Amino acid sequence: MRVTSSFPLGTLRDTPSEAEIISHQLLLKGGYIRRVNSGIYAYMPIMLRVIEKISTIIEKELNNAGCSKLLLPQLHPADLWKKTQRWEGYTAGEGIMFNLKDRQGKEFGLAPTHEEVITNIASEIINSYKQLPLCYYQIQTKFRDEIRPRFGLMRSREFIMKDGYSFHSSKEDLSCFYEKMEKAYENIFKNCGLDTVGVDADSGSIGGAASKEFMVTADAGEDSILFTESGSYAANIEKAVSFPSKEVPLKILDPEWIETPNQKSIVDICQKNNLDASQIVKVVIFVAKFEDKSEVPILACVRGDQHINEVKLFNLINKKYNPNLIHLKIVEDNAIVENNLTNFPLGYIGPDINDETIKTNSNWAKSWVRIVDYSASCLSNFVSGGNKFNFHKVFQNYSFINKQFLVSDIRNAKKGDYISPESNETLKEKRGIEIGHIFQLGQKYSEKLNAKFSDKDGQLKYLWMGCYGIGVTRIAQAAIEQNHDDNGISWPIQISPFEILIIPTNIKDPNQKKLTEEIYKEFKSNKIDVLLDDRDERAGVKFKDADLIGIPFQIIIGRDSINKEVEFLCRSSKSKLKIASKDLLEKFISESKVMYNKNS
Amino acid sequence: MRVTSSFPLGTLRDTPSEAEIISHQLLLKGGYIRRVNSGIYAYMPIMLRVIEKISTIIEKELNNAGCSKLLLPQLHPADLWKKTQRWEGYTAGEGIMFNLKDRQGKEFGLAPTHEEVITNIASEIINSYKQLPLCYYQIQTKFRDEIRPRFGLMRSREFIMKDGYSFHSSKEDLSCFYEKMEKAYENIFKNCGLDTVGVDADSGSIGGAASKEFMVTADAGEDSILFTESGSYAANIEKAVSFPSKEVPLKILDPEWIETPNQKSIVDICQKNNLDASQIVKVVIFVAKFEDKSEVPILACVRGDQHINEVKLFNLINKKYNPNLIHLKIVEDNAIVENNLTNFPLGYIGPDINDETIKTNSNWAKSWVRIVDYSASCLSNFVSGGNKFNFHKVFQNYSFINKQFLVSDIRNAKKGDYISPESNETLKEKRGIEIGHIFQLGQKYSEKLNAKFSDKDGQLKYLWMGCYGIGVTRIAQAAIEQNHDDNGISWPIQISPFEILIIPTNIKDPNQKKLTEEIYKEFKSNKIDVLLDDRDERAGVKFKDADLIGIPFQIIIGRDSINKEVEFLCRSSKSKLKIASKDLLEKFISESKVMYNKNS
Repeated sequence: MRVTSSFPLGTLRDTPSEAEIISHQLLLKGGYIRRVNSGIYAYMPIMLRVIEKISTIIEKELNNAGCSKLLLPQLHPADLWKKTQRWEGYTAGEGIMFNLKDRQGKEFGLAPTHEEVITNIASEIINSYKQLPLCYYQIQTKFRDEIRPRFGLMRSREFIMKDGYSFHSSKEDLSCFYEKMEKAYENIFKNCGLDTVGVDADSGSIGGAASKEFMVTADAGEDSILFTESGSYAANIEKAVSFPSKEVPLKILDPEWIETPNQKSIVDICQKNNLDASQIVKVVIFVAKFEDKSEVPILACVRGDQHINEVKLFNLINKKYNPNLIHLKIVEDNAIVENNLTNFPLGYIGPDINDETIKTNSNWAKSWVRIVDYSASCLSNFVSGGNKFNFHKVFQNYSFINKQFLVSDIRNAKKGDYISPESNETLKEKRGIEIGHIFQLGQKYSEKLNAKFSDKDGQLKYLWMGCYGIGVTRIAQAAIEQNHDDNGISWPIQISPFEILIIPTNIKDPNQKKLTEEIYKEFKSNKIDVLLDDRDERAGVKFKDADLIGIPFQIIIGRDSINKEVEFLCRSSKSKLKIASKDLLEKFISESKVMYNKNS
Repeated sequence: MRVTSSFPLGTLRDTPSEAEIISHQLLLKGGYIRRVNSGIYAYMPIMLRVIEKISTIIEKELNNAGCSKLLLPQLHPADLWKKTQRWEGYTAGEGIMFNLKDRQGKEFGLAPTHEEVITNIASEIINSYKQLPLCYYQIQTKFRDEIRPRFGLMRSREFIMKDGYSFHSSKEDLSCFYEKMEKAYENIFKNCGLDTVGVDADSGSIGGAASKEFMVTADAGEDSILFTESGSYAANIEKAVSFPSKEVPLKILDPEWIETPNQKSIVDICQKNNLDASQIVKVVIFVAKFEDKSEVPILACVRGDQHINEVKLFNLINKKYNPNLIHLKIVEDNAIVENNLTNFPLGYIGPDINDETIKTNSNWAKSWVRIVDYSASCLSNFVSGGNKFNFHKVFQNYSFINKQFLVSDIRNAKKGDYISPESNETLKEKRGIEIGHIFQLGQKYSEKLNAKFSDKDGQLKYLWMGCYGIGVTRIAQAAIEQNHDDNGISWPIQISPFEILIIPTNIKDPNQKKLTEEIYKEFKSNKIDVLLDDRDERAGVKFKDADLIGIPFQIIIGRDSINKEVEFLCRSSKSKLKIASKDLLEKFISESKVMYNKNS
């Protein structure tokens, strides 16, 4: 391709101010993407080439694994999503599905994911166990009405994903295929030239059993990964489990009541009363809103030096109740307290607060759901709220409190925690960008959509399902987070828009022009992905653009053209070599081979 | 690919009743598409292969023509469409753009076309004439909230299109590029194995000057094409111009008034009064609704044996007025008449009806816009409504009517019409399916979006634009309309999901199995696009499916396997040949070559 005739570059001089992280800045500055609206971008030709290279790598690996590529619609009828009880959760309140009515007034969602549509199709296509396993996938633009779109393609409202869905006759076959996909994913990310780590993950609103995320490690990542140095454990903080450090034993205080005027934070209470945070039980109030519009007040208890993990808490409540949980909201607003509660000294609440505090005319269920994290449940005595303004109290343990508690893990693991009570291994933390996610869905969707197959013995059974996502546009941006320097991007060669860039420094010089054309033709005829910057621009401008757009190799054709000599540059190592033009192709082939094999 | 492990077929036994035309029936029955909702389909793996082959043909041709592929967003902010004054027309009333509000309440449309977005980007990227011409294109799912989705992918609500947009420094350069695109389009359709015809076309709501449609001729087509046998003229009926047969001269009748009790149709009046339809001027009432909510009453006159062309009428009115015309509605409803008109004997209206018939309290403008088609304007005397119930009148000509008339072409051309007053050539008619459309947009969008470039002399000027569409999914279905028989589809090899299908009749026979694998491997290693139907099914089932899905060549491996002999079938000619397996590859290569070259 030639820059002047068919491949215009759109590099910018200045770094756009709206971009917070380096990869977003470089995508804009390099002319890869252009902003059309908040979280909505145009992929310019140079970007589309990156997307297509990533897509090709994914397709090759998945086709080898026996998956079939199809293309599903983006407009989904609400009816289907209502059958799986996901319509409300995805469209109301914090729901992220764009939705609209057609000219007949029928409701549709703009698909962020395709479990409903594919399961419905599978229910029509699959009759017999003989057709199984079966895995369909697609690469397609998805939509999310993000609360706060940001970081360019990381959290955008339109983005490209590969999503795949597998169907099985048994749980065992699903597990087996899931492992095959895990391997395929590792290959895909290696073949994209990325450093990734697989971590245990929360299954989120997709639902199901096992689930694993693939993370590109990068400081700009939105996710926290907790892992052990030995590699024995790695998990997303949303999902990670651990054992916290031992609590400092509390010597029973006399009197039972502690006056704590205006001491609302754990830090305050500890300082003013010579307590350790691990001796306190923190009580946090939530209200859970369900699909059937019911609302349930939640009282969540955790040791004072720990933090509540809202993802774990959400999943726990969602599992406990039948209607889907739509939203879990922390109660810290006085108006909400006044509307629903009485005699309720917010900031001084203890685990034993009475059900009578819930007003009879409130929408809320009339008794507290009390949940205690393991870290707090094992304390033999502790300090907590006295249910009275400006007072805390010493509790002996939970047994004397005449209330029912659900004991579970609702706490954030954190770095420094132990992975087991016996082990000395502690957790480390790093940031990651999620680029892939695989799930064992089980029979959740096939049950709701009545997707059955006839088994060997002629019995009708629900299909077992897995689902498998990859963020295609995210991979592109994550690759930049991992591969850049002060001058710009330095693409892994596997997903670079071109393999090599030819830069004649002065296109008006007949010697340069002639040699440029010779080299360009030689590379083209050898099927090498080559871009020729044939603009009539100053050499400095071209060099700067070359470093910015980040193609892994550059050929600089300058004054030595007359001797048939050029310079061969490697973008990542910054190595520069004077070389006879006749040796150029061979040099490129050997150097690029090394680069292609580095990660795979 | 193998049917059992990675390429499941989903053929149906029965023809789905919802499909009206053969191509839609075969797409469903052959398992190519599955209906998800009205006008919304899933493209199954076998369909996606067809789509990808068509896309590849398009890309190759456009890249050669110097166009650059990119990908624009599907969600478009309303603001941009308001700047070009298309938001209202596309979303209100008969508007076909799905639209929604995001969580912030901002309006977005789901793009049916991309003039706004690309022109906005071009305005930021293009500074100088040196960067021109420039043409961007994309292949993408588009959305249309069709009033009546039907015919499968022909008129669906989600469909795949190639849309391209070119930018130029002059009208001449645009014309020149437009011709280049015309040639590229002809190549693309030939390379898809289609018979197409290029016709003059209406520019529709896109706007602009010259425009040409490319039609696949097929009886099921929704469009009417008028053309001359010699090839000197071809146009969509929406746009076609012609000269009607001469009128039968009217001998002046005495008296001037003709009593026509209950004679409301042209046929009635002619029969009862011994008149010819060409002696009558038919007056049709419309109301034009504009973007600024204003409403204007229209009185359209045409010769009695001719029909009004609402597309021409719409364009004429839209051009005449400044706010965009949203909707043109024929007035034939008594309620509308009563609300807006007084003393108005519908069915007996003449061209001289008074402006005082418009009620003072009506929303309508207070004088009639009177438009006369050429066919009626040249009549020296004629019969028309007497503006009095049950009476018509003889008019001498228009001059004596003290009103202003706009004389224009607002009439449907029809078969049998002459193409010029001097020529003996008359128009023929056939049906067509529109699969491509090219437009010279001129400066319409660049003016509204302030997209300028600096010319050679340093002056800022508006960009000249062209736009170019191809219906990718439509091509697939149109190809079936042109290529099928009673047993199913018969794909042009260029866009067939596979080039050849191998059918072992009994997969359990070890000889067959061995020979099948040998042939499959030989074809695969020669990079031939081959599908192996390795299902354990009866031969009859496989043959039926093979004819239905329509891959152009079949290899049938049966009992003669033992002698290394197989059958080689051509789907379209139904020719069948017994052949030694060692000669198979050569045979396929020579036969397929003929087929590839047939159209191109």
